[in-house]
Amino acid sequence: MSVSLVGAGPGDPELITVKGLARVRACDVLVFDRLVAPELVAEAPRGALRIARDELSQDEVNRLLVGHGHHLRVVRLKGGDPFVFGRGGEEALALADAGVPFELVPGVSSLSAVPESVLIPVTHRGISSAVTAFASHDVETLDAHALAGVPGTLVAFMGGAVVGRLAERLIEHGKPASTPAAVISRGTTEDERVVVAPLGAIGAAAHDLPTPALVVIGEVVAVREALGALRRSAA
Amino acid sequence: MSVSLVGAGPGDPELITVKGLARVRACDVLVFDRLVAPELVAEAPRGALRIARDELSQDEVNRLLVGHGHHLRVVRLKGGDPFVFGRGGEEALALADAGVPFELVPGVSSLSAVPESVLIPVTHRGISSAVTAFASHDVETLDAHALAGVPGTLVAFMGGAVVGRLAERLIEHGKPASTPAAVISRGTTEDERVVVAPLGAIGAAAHDLPTPALVVIGEVVAVREALGALRRSAA
Repeated sequence: MSVSLVGAGPGDPELITVKGLARVRACDVLVFDRLVAPELVAEAPRGALRIARDELSQDEVNRLLVGHGHHLRVVRLKGGDPFVFGRGGEEALALADAGVPFELVPGVSSLSAVPESVLIPVTHRGISSAVTAFASHDVETLDAHALAGVPGTLVAFMGGAVVGRLAERLIEHGKPASTPAAVISRGTTEDERVVVAPLGAIGAAAHDLPTPALVVIGEVVAVREALGALRRSAA
Repeated sequence: MSVSLVGAGPGDPELITVKGLARVRACDVLVFDRLVAPELVAEAPRGALRIARDELSQDEVNRLLVGHGHHLRVVRLKGGDPFVFGRGGEEALALADAGVPFELVPGVSSLSAVPESVLIPVTHRGISSAVTAFASHDVETLDAHALAGVPGTLVAFMGGAVVGRLAERLIEHGKPASTPAAVISRGTTEDERVVVAPLGAIGAAAHDLPTPALVVIGEVVAVREALGALRRSAA
């Protein structure tokens, strides 16, 4: 049969795509990540095998997909988009290597949807015409010089726990400490929380936000403030 | 009433979100971009007013949304995601300024979905842990120095018509001419076409691809070649 690598979107279960939901509703086996909404796991057919990825290593996940994919309709449901910090490429390579047919069904990535949920546009005419997203768990090995110099908005995935150190490194390499920044915890879900502060103060301001959290750095964060002020004056 | 700024996704009508489609199906007025699939425009209720954005200026669109949004359910349906090169921020500011309630419904951005459609992951472990997306229609004013130096994958929006000049500028600023590159025309639709070549040759190779086209530059393009080779050997 085949394997569909499906993006579940950023958190809100209604942000899966129409195609992705159709694949979930027609699967024999659902292999899902910890961060996928339970409402989506519940959409699999009653008789489908549901496997939480949880403690499995990436190699074990790959073997599971290959094993079931030869003779069943398998959906691999991943948070966000499978190809944006989702390791979908590794799973696709394992499937191709084993001769198992597969398809990619994109998802809404946290990259733009999580900032959007708190009214921060990652691009905005006259303010930012570029956005750089990067994985920041290995904060000490990041090329902070290049990241501090690239024009436009920065979006750090897996940045919640290291936001203070990330800010320090960017400032050391010339990013102004006054640059607006935001940390968004559990974006698009009912537990969403956001903290806004200048880059030089964001580490202290956001230190107790629960993970997963996304960090947004750039002048676009000010658009949120402008929208908020307009809404308050209209109310 | 209110205005929903909804992302239609990258082209394939099944890549709209469940929430976005629900908004379209319940609207009184649908204002849609040229690149939105006709199948999605057809999902609006029979009696809904459908307005093609086409020749309207951004100011005219803003006035239209404000005018109808005071007393009707308006959906502003935009290609990709409203906040990724979508000018959703400008529309949100106009609505907030006029006191019209609005919401954002994210969409699947071409940023990752279009490369994904041709099996290019914009991030891939061990190859790229960052992706920079930028608007490239003003190719001469781009900060080519910073873009050539940022680690990871580059994705140029509106890059199809200028890909040769974009490649030249990046190479002038130190990006190796051997860097793998791809141009993807009308990604995720039935008319999708892709051309792959080293950065130094991509302009000539892709010069006759129809727009809109997305340009992807980076070692991740080689993952597509690896997947293709594995699939051929398995077939």
